[in-house]
Amino acid sequence: MVPHLVTALTGPINELEQRVLDSMPAIERWFRLEWMEHTPPFYCSVDVRNAGFKLAPVDTDLFPSGWNNLTPSMLPLAVQAAMAAIEKICPEARNLLIIPQNDLRSASYLTNLSQMCRIFHMAGLHVRLGSINPDVKKSTLLKLPDGETMTLEPVIRTRGRVGVKDFDPCTILLNNDLVAGVPGILEDLSEQYLLPPLHASWSTRRRSTHFKTYEEVAKRFGKLIGVDAWLINPMFDRCGGIDLATADGVEALTARVDTLLAKVKKKYKEYGIKEKPFVVVKADNLGSNAGLMSVRDSKEVAALALKACAVAGHPFHGVLELILQEGVLTLERMNDAVAEPVVYMMDRYVVGGFYRIHAERGMDEDLNAPGSSYVSLAFDQSTHLPQLGVRPGASAPNRFYMYGVVGRLAMLAASYELESTDPHAERYD
Amino acid sequence: MVPHLVTALTGPINELEQRVLDSMPAIERWFRLEWMEHTPPFYCSVDVRNAGFKLAPVDTDLFPSGWNNLTPSMLPLAVQAAMAAIEKICPEARNLLIIPQNDLRSASYLTNLSQMCRIFHMAGLHVRLGSINPDVKKSTLLKLPDGETMTLEPVIRTRGRVGVKDFDPCTILLNNDLVAGVPGILEDLSEQYLLPPLHASWSTRRRSTHFKTYEEVAKRFGKLIGVDAWLINPMFDRCGGIDLATADGVEALTARVDTLLAKVKKKYKEYGIKEKPFVVVKADNLGSNAGLMSVRDSKEVAALALKACAVAGHPFHGVLELILQEGVLTLERMNDAVAEPVVYMMDRYVVGGFYRIHAERGMDEDLNAPGSSYVSLAFDQSTHLPQLGVRPGASAPNRFYMYGVVGRLAMLAASYELESTDPHAERYD
Repeated sequence: MVPHLVTALTGPINELEQRVLDSMPAIERWFRLEWMEHTPPFYCSVDVRNAGFKLAPVDTDLFPSGWNNLTPSMLPLAVQAAMAAIEKICPEARNLLIIPQNDLRSASYLTNLSQMCRIFHMAGLHVRLGSINPDVKKSTLLKLPDGETMTLEPVIRTRGRVGVKDFDPCTILLNNDLVAGVPGILEDLSEQYLLPPLHASWSTRRRSTHFKTYEEVAKRFGKLIGVDAWLINPMFDRCGGIDLATADGVEALTARVDTLLAKVKKKYKEYGIKEKPFVVVKADNLGSNAGLMSVRDSKEVAALALKACAVAGHPFHGVLELILQEGVLTLERMNDAVAEPVVYMMDRYVVGGFYRIHAERGMDEDLNAPGSSYVSLAFDQSTHLPQLGVRPGASAPNRFYMYGVVGRLAMLAASYELESTDPHAERYD
Repeated sequence: MVPHLVTALTGPINELEQRVLDSMPAIERWFRLEWMEHTPPFYCSVDVRNAGFKLAPVDTDLFPSGWNNLTPSMLPLAVQAAMAAIEKICPEARNLLIIPQNDLRSASYLTNLSQMCRIFHMAGLHVRLGSINPDVKKSTLLKLPDGETMTLEPVIRTRGRVGVKDFDPCTILLNNDLVAGVPGILEDLSEQYLLPPLHASWSTRRRSTHFKTYEEVAKRFGKLIGVDAWLINPMFDRCGGIDLATADGVEALTARVDTLLAKVKKKYKEYGIKEKPFVVVKADNLGSNAGLMSVRDSKEVAALALKACAVAGHPFHGVLELILQEGVLTLERMNDAVAEPVVYMMDRYVVGGFYRIHAERGMDEDLNAPGSSYVSLAFDQSTHLPQLGVRPGASAPNRFYMYGVVGRLAMLAASYELESTDPHAERYD
């Protein structure tokens, strides 16, 4: 089934699609050369928004879950990519330890874990699940919605290595963004591959660093295919040390929102776009629960700040590191619900993707939020292979290829980002 | 659609399947380590025969056509494998020249060419078709059965490089087994990658060399998973310098057939196999038209020799290099027709496969023969990903995984074979 795309197929995005298709060999060669110099993150997923006139990544997850949302026909691609990744990192690997999130109450997350185990087992590894949750003190049976079970074991540290009982992995795969901080048990591992590295976790990551490197990648890519980088790049601003409980904090944020909105307006004018611009405010240093708010007018900041301060545990409490990002509308619809494509990658390959759908949210709101109407819909099986010669906007595979290109640009940005934040990197300043 | 396998699921093959599944991580690791030391052929296809009690490759094609027989869902896998292959060989590649067979009268072969162009174009290359057929003197339009067209151009040589007009490729992909000899235009290319190399063509290749290296690979693999290598290895004998038009020649071949049949009989006895053994005689140094004959009794050799000598242009004319191969029954059936699985690989990945079916042939005959009843049936989309926990013989994917393992063993043998026949290899004798 090819998802029916109800995208406003207006000028610029079709031009972009045409450019991307025409430049396919140049684009693939460019990525090949980039991956000669830079190491792709082990895996990642990228949320993409398609505004009809603009297509941009809005978030890059270096600890992606949701692998269960890929279709069975995408599985061989993921397995093949996993084989390629393992071959590069540790061809002698026998054992892989997956460290999941600490909170395992979500049935959907458990299904994701099961799918991850399946992928790496099929790539030829013995796979075990090890928890770093201090509450997990003994081997525990996890029950999946389909009735299957998986065994979760407490992670054990022995000098420079971690593992679980009677299982010594050569590689440890983190599926836990460590937003609460890096636990001692994972620090200073000297003899094992920990992937992604600790500085990919939210204890080090900043969205603003990612989008800074993305901006540079987008500019170079824009030059390569001859398009304005803004068409694929969301503008942003960083806003650190703000306390929204104070008038000064609210004022400072208001001013920043104002400035960014003005920049977006200018661009909209340049392209004759009639939509109302908006800005998305998120925590710069938090993973999934980044507490997003959409602001169409800087006057709204005060009310939104008040609301944030009133909610216990809201991520915008206290002194904040914030990122303001140009809001990118999503004009895609699946069965009348607002949809946002999510692109999944392993090693340097796009292995699939799906639509995140939220019937109760608007086209300028974040869709990565809890809600009973949240569903995932896998892309068509042929995903990212373009149909050549089909006019822009008319072919789902061509649109998906473009999503795959933008996803890989964000992945490349993540690679630069991880290089720049690597505490062990040699510097040649 | 999962092809319905009517395989005689008797003891040994199910035991083998179980061993292969149980040893999956060890097998995958073994292949990873092998590919660290040895270069896989750029692409290849392997004909596999499943006798119920034995599973073995019977031919390895290093210039595979038939890519059009893979299903659309296998295409992304082939593209991803092509990307991996190109990245290793020439990451800076922009242009790829495909050199097809000289004879382009087959519509099915043209469809194969079109599919190959599609795969490499999607992997990010500019692809052109260049002919080394001296009769192709100018750019020619090839008409595909679906109405599409492709352009075939004469190959031009300029010092150390070949190309077509206004197109200078970095890599040249041969889809022509050069059985008539290596043309001068392809010799001594100094600045381009020619894949597969010239010594992979039938002007250098000998089946007996391939099956000698395969035997060694099979023995090591048998040790790895703890099975008798014979279960995956067809015994063979080489028989050079024979002239079937002479009584001496017939006598010599008769004696060799007798000896090999006796060896097969001994093995059948050991395993309690009631089938009648047979031996297949093929040209040792010819590609697709290797003129096979199946011999159940050495007394038949004289009659078969007479028949071969009576047919004008029969490959068994004159002085011959022959290989005698233990015949492997195929007990697989598709809609009552005898079926033989063909496994397709690119770089080190299994990317798909199909069944070669020939309703008019018996289970002990070669199926790679012309005939109106020859059809291809693609494997199920999930091909080579095993279903774990399913009892042996009950799951098509598990059977396909095993076919993929045997296909890769033959590919590994081809890698050793090409190393041993490489005229430019450094020798450390």
